[in-house]
Amino acid sequence: MLEMSSFMEVALRYKVIFFDSYGVLRNFKGVFSGVSDMLKTLNSYGIEYFVLTNDASRSPQQLADKFHQRDVFEITSKKIISSGMLARDYLESKVRTGTVVYLGTENSAHYIETAGLKTIAIRDVDLETAENYSALVLLDDEGFDWNTDIAKTLNLLRKQNMPVIVANTDVTYPVAKHDVNVAIGAIGDMLEVLARKTFIRFGKPDSQMFSYAYNHALRKTKITKRDVLMVGDTLKTDIIGGNKFGVDTCLVLSGNIQPQNAELLINSTGIIPDFICDSVIT
Amino acid sequence: MLEMSSFMEVALRYKVIFFDSYGVLRNFKGVFSGVSDMLKTLNSYGIEYFVLTNDASRSPQQLADKFHQRDVFEITSKKIISSGMLARDYLESKVRTGTVVYLGTENSAHYIETAGLKTIAIRDVDLETAENYSALVLLDDEGFDWNTDIAKTLNLLRKQNMPVIVANTDVTYPVAKHDVNVAIGAIGDMLEVLARKTFIRFGKPDSQMFSYAYNHALRKTKITKRDVLMVGDTLKTDIIGGNKFGVDTCLVLSGNIQPQNAELLINSTGIIPDFICDSVIT
Amino acid sequence: MLEMSSFMEVALRYKVIFFDSYGVLRNFKGVFSGVSDMLKTLNSYGIEYFVLTNDASRSPQQLADKFHQRDVFEITSKKIISSGMLARDYLESKVRTGTVVYLGTENSAHYIETAGLKTIAIRDVDLETAENYSALVLLDDEGFDWNTDIAKTLNLLRKQNMPVIVANTDVTYPVAKHDVNVAIGAIGDMLEVLARKTFIRFGKPDSQMFSYAYNHALRKTKITKRDVLMVGDTLKTDIIGGNKFGVDTCLVLSGNIQPQNAELLINSTGIIPDFICDSVIT
Amino acid sequence: MLEMSSFMEVALRYKVIFFDSYGVLRNFKGVFSGVSDMLKTLNSYGIEYFVLTNDASRSPQQLADKFHQRDVFEITSKKIISSGMLARDYLESKVRTGTVVYLGTENSAHYIETAGLKTIAIRDVDLETAENYSALVLLDDEGFDWNTDIAKTLNLLRKQNMPVIVANTDVTYPVAKHDVNVAIGAIGDMLEVLARKTFIRFGKPDSQMFSYAYNHALRKTKITKRDVLMVGDTLKTDIIGGNKFGVDTCLVLSGNIQPQNAELLINSTGIIPDFICDSVIT
Repeated sequence: MLEMSSFMEVALRYKVIFFDSYGVLRNFKGVFSGVSDMLKTLNSYGIEYFVLTNDASRSPQQLADKFHQRDVFEITSKKIISSGMLARDYLESKVRTGTVVYLGTENSAHYIETAGLKTIAIRDVDLETAENYSALVLLDDEGFDWNTDIAKTLNLLRKQNMPVIVANTDVTYPVAKHDVNVAIGAIGDMLEVLARKTFIRFGKPDSQMFSYAYNHALRKTKITKRDVLMVGDTLKTDIIGGNKFGVDTCLVLSGNIQPQNAELLINSTGIIPDFICDSVIT
Repeated sequence: MLEMSSFMEVALRYKVIFFDSYGVLRNFKGVFSGVSDMLKTLNSYGIEYFVLTNDASRSPQQLADKFHQRDVFEITSKKIISSGMLARDYLESKVRTGTVVYLGTENSAHYIETAGLKTIAIRDVDLETAENYSALVLLDDEGFDWNTDIAKTLNLLRKQNMPVIVANTDVTYPVAKHDVNVAIGAIGDMLEVLARKTFIRFGKPDSQMFSYAYNHALRKTKITKRDVLMVGDTLKTDIIGGNKFGVDTCLVLSGNIQPQNAELLINSTGIIPDFICDSVIT
Repeated sequence: MLEMSSFMEVALRYKVIFFDSYGVLRNFKGVFSGVSDMLKTLNSYGIEYFVLTNDASRSPQQLADKFHQRDVFEITSKKIISSGMLARDYLESKVRTGTVVYLGTENSAHYIETAGLKTIAIRDVDLETAENYSALVLLDDEGFDWNTDIAKTLNLLRKQNMPVIVANTDVTYPVAKHDVNVAIGAIGDMLEVLARKTFIRFGKPDSQMFSYAYNHALRKTKITKRDVLMVGDTLKTDIIGGNKFGVDTCLVLSGNIQPQNAELLINSTGIIPDFICDSVIT
Repeated sequence: MLEMSSFMEVALRYKVIFFDSYGVLRNFKGVFSGVSDMLKTLNSYGIEYFVLTNDASRSPQQLADKFHQRDVFEITSKKIISSGMLARDYLESKVRTGTVVYLGTENSAHYIETAGLKTIAIRDVDLETAENYSALVLLDDEGFDWNTDIAKTLNLLRKQNMPVIVANTDVTYPVAKHDVNVAIGAIGDMLEVLARKTFIRFGKPDSQMFSYAYNHALRKTKITKRDVLMVGDTLKTDIIGGNKFGVDTCLVLSGNIQPQNAELLINSTGIIPDFICDSVIT
């Protein structure tokens, strides 16, 4: 039998908390009530926190706005570490010049442009001049026509060798209690096989996400990895990623995993959280 | 160095020839000139032949019509063994009753209906009554909206456990000299991972395709596997499939594989044809 | 809730039964008591049966002897279809000449020699004359030194391109109630990745195994696929393989699958048997 | 055509160089002559360097000794970042107490013991008391009997859920000009599939290795990622890993990749180094 913990009792043992967003602080209906109070309590104890999210569809400011609209003002854009930020940093440090082709909405591309790069939507790409493009970045599942633009992307990669960045490794995301959408990570997985290239992925469970957040935290407070707790609802991203990075991990049952399945899933995957809680607000 | 053979010299040693269609008898421009004469020669020597094709988008009659339009009347619908025929047989023998959901054109679905089953396009499916559907079949990459219907298919499989049949295992197909389209097999591969189910696939290199053709041939003439030659342009479907089934194999360089890459590809994949020819018409 | 059936009531609806061996007719302790009587009943009703087994470590005669030692004389060598038989047929029809390198016991190699080929154990191979060997066949997990001979096999394949046959696709096999051994199929999977070659595999769930058995049955009695029932304890080999071949399938819970897990496993894999029974002897 | 660079001209543009070891500084014959002089030149320009190696079979001190034996005293144990160090840190921060089971030599285990943990070789494990072990770590391909201990490891994981650490992700390593050995990473890949668990891997191309080295460098000198060059002979570990971490990369052709294959491999993998040099000593 799994031992359940009270989230706040666990949290108070740490100096820094990393939260996953979806399934932990919010779901398809909106932000969980009680999140604002929970964060105020952490603030009152001087506990720092960050939100680590596999999302490249919006800038950190836009992601924070989603919380502000629900009166959770504790989550500012500075608190948000997104896989889109890692992708943007990669483009800035490694691609530097030229035009980057993107799959996603104009909104997602706008954020990439802050790296000083020109962007072009896949639909507007001219395959006859494929050598003009310096990288391809997969940002969001919306904003392009799958029937035509997935094949067009494949043909672009067949004509011109370039770095391909998958800015969100998630393969699905929930849109209703029982329904999901296919996320851009799944399109990336398909294209990588078809193009027979090695893509560069950003997002949990990769340690780069955790490293980025940890270095952010280090600028504010003197900590070691033992002072950090990763809180998430998904074993294969949040928990294995936190474990590997070397921080303690807490699984919450308010998202992907139903309470009655938790033990089976932990045993069958071999991914073992240090703590299990119902949610961050109970 | 690879030893090249004359196709007709090789072919005359056998009693039955299995031809792949695309890249062997035709390409994106149409049927190769000379195919009709080549088949007439086989006929004159009493050599039987069949076309084995990973195609579920059309009935054998419609596939044969494509040849007739180019004045190749030697290929009748009786000569064609398609992965769609195997899928149709499966539905007839194993599903038997109920309504089958399909991804593909109405044209592809019409052929499935000859198995005595009702069909419904994924767009018309009501997820609230998912228990009404007895199987899902992936027929063609056209005829549905990828942006919405791939996720709808996934949600259908999450709601109701049912057999899923991928009626064409190809992941891409050529549409111009350097351009490809994404085939329904690639959508099947993506959905199988996302749904975490085991799908049933029909098509080369699976031995069922060869077995079906071999049994067809047996009805016409007394043969053993040593009397059969498989001719194809793709190592990973035609050649490995033929090899495994136990018949001799002939790689032609008129399709997927450029002559200068043939040796490298054979060595790097370990898939070794018994013969290599420029094409079936030289 | 799963609907359970009585095995004999199900069996009597068919003309031919295909049995998996391990977990269905026997386990690590020996042949199930009652199997002889069950087979006698089938005989009395004129129902034909065959044993389909992923085993290349022994000849059909030796496999039958195991049953005879337990007084089950109904299973003769003629009733046994093993993946080793398919591998042997492949070598006979496609390799024909030369020396075949094997991983396995001398016993397993002896059977391959009946195809008219010379064999040599991997330990005796001279890598300096790699061009002398015409194929590699993986027969059994015993009979070679894994610490040295797995790497030696890999180096052989790096030096000389040749067909590689995996004569048993199973990756583990039970040796006690809770313990397994690693089977030669797992070694094959590892070597295929390391050598970056495409291996040829024989055994369930591949349809070739079922096709072979079906053709055997056809020689004795006039049947269609609707007259055949596949009985097995493993969803991923017996049941999906039988389903795909187009015959009815019956899952028994006397082997790999515990009764309390059956429904979960069927739902989570999407592999749906037509019937479920406790065992073939109840 | 690929543009070739002189290594020293490239190196002098950076403040910190990360070197892969095998194929870059040494091969199966020993350390390349000229390495000591090259490192002296870097020292004279105030350029810092580290050796990043996927090796868990020895401590950094023992790895450095290998260089000292060849009179390359510029590489001290402080200069070496090994995947074994990351595994050791993981065990120290996340496992903390109990007995760790290992696959490898006693030598490799000795280093793990510096994390304050007891260790036990797989051969000495008692499967009846599996609950006594707190983690499993795969260190080296030597030091255990593959025929028996791989299955024993699998049975241990079937009995007891525990973190599994693969301390070297390499799947082969060269032992002669044309021969390789199978590395512990390949055993890890096989066991992960058989046990159906998620293992934790340390080593290039994972960004944790680069992050660890980068933080080491930061302690000595003020740098950004643009000041760092990763030099390696392998696209799939050194180059993709460096690229993803955001530093410039230099492929050398003195190891895994033959000069005549470099362009083909870069195009076929899509892994693009910023520079290509013959070796670090020319």
